[in-house]
Amino acid sequence: MKVERILLDHGSGGKLSHELVQTCFLPLLGKGDPHQLNDSASVHVDQVGLAITTDSFVVDPIFFPGGDIGHLAVCGTVNDLCMAGARPLWLTTAFILEEGLPLEDLRRIVESMGRTARKVGVDLVAGDTKVVPKGKADKLFINTTGVGAVRKGRTFGGQFARPGDQILISGTLGDHGVAILSAREGLAFETPILSDSTPLWDLTKTILDTGADIRVMRDPTRGDWPQH
Amino acid sequence: MKVERILLDHGSGGKLSHELVQTCFLPLLGKGDPHQLNDSASVHVDQVGLAITTDSFVVDPIFFPGGDIGHLAVCGTVNDLCMAGARPLWLTTAFILEEGLPLEDLRRIVESMGRTARKVGVDLVAGDTKVVPKGKADKLFINTTGVGAVRKGRTFGGQFARPGDQILISGTLGDHGVAILSAREGLAFETPILSDSTPLWDLTKTILDTGADIRVMRDPTRGDWPQH
Repeated sequence: MKVERILLDHGSGGKLSHELVQTCFLPLLGKGDPHQLNDSASVHVDQVGLAITTDSFVVDPIFFPGGDIGHLAVCGTVNDLCMAGARPLWLTTAFILEEGLPLEDLRRIVESMGRTARKVGVDLVAGDTKVVPKGKADKLFINTTGVGAVRKGRTFGGQFARPGDQILISGTLGDHGVAILSAREGLAFETPILSDSTPLWDLTKTILDTGADIRVMRDPTRGDWPQH
Repeated sequence: MKVERILLDHGSGGKLSHELVQTCFLPLLGKGDPHQLNDSASVHVDQVGLAITTDSFVVDPIFFPGGDIGHLAVCGTVNDLCMAGARPLWLTTAFILEEGLPLEDLRRIVESMGRTARKVGVDLVAGDTKVVPKGKADKLFINTTGVGAVRKGRTFGGQFARPGDQILISGTLGDHGVAILSAREGLAFETPILSDSTPLWDLTKTILDTGADIRVMRDPTRGDWPQH
């Protein structure tokens, strides 16, 4: 009997990821409409509306043109909150470190996280560190989980998209992906391509303040489950 | 020049962990009193008091007598919230999967998480999956981050401990650690020792409801940073 195994494509955001969510993770969530594939979950406590989102970052290499895994870990989670129209309030961060990682690399990454968080005004409130034996992880992995405050009466989500909607794009496409690929594969271009990963709260706030009829905001992140 | 590197002991919760937090992570947090080493962070939004905590689980083996990594990932984070006297509301979970992991193992672990979460009544609201190439992780790592509701006027923390305080212990000591070790090292005992990891919300709620003068509650978790 052939044993079914996890493949790289199960994490790619494509068909196999979708199947894994449908057959394995949705029963865990116990609910959730798979058509509502948003960047964060919406919850309420005492009439306060919050958005919650989680992401692990496993990017290789950990330093790349225009950024590093720490910068990315703050931007990615902050931006998932922004896409719900939520002001980022708190981040937690959990590190899985491979034995032998140079401390200097960790320090550079941690400094980068702190700098990016201060730029957004989000508070890094809790953390965790685990170390695994050499060869049991790839230098370091970072999880960031974020909580944001949702404005009353403003709900965004893929389920509100309609045929004929106009799409606004915040920048050129593919810069981050190409920057990672060029660093990983040693590709050279005449003009170096830098990652454009950046926190989007200022932009999001400006959009919200205009009162424009925006119904969906998305930040493309691999691996997110349907969040509802 | 000798390059300083991460050692296994940096994650053990001992002296090196403490040094790493002091010299590397506290500047990232930008604040935080290192004497307040509690299990979760305390935050407020619109006068609602919340506790937040994060933990990554890298336990080897992933199945052990009395439990598995999924059960542990829910219990660990739920219990860190309980120790703040906080009712667990929401959990996020993020998986880092090693290419080649049997899908059946993942399903067993996910089912175990769902079962444990339902037992507590905590809502698994958001998730994330990443897959890394074979050899770049150790089967799977799970991050769980939790948010809980704090009762007004009840604050617990290590900073409130005083000489002469009496200590109550909720069970026998070391069962979980010995269960893991016996599975990892193939140790045999006349009586098999099972992990006693279990969600502690019912116990915590009972303690809180008595109104007893409890000032510190702790769940020993390796790797947590000072949380404030």
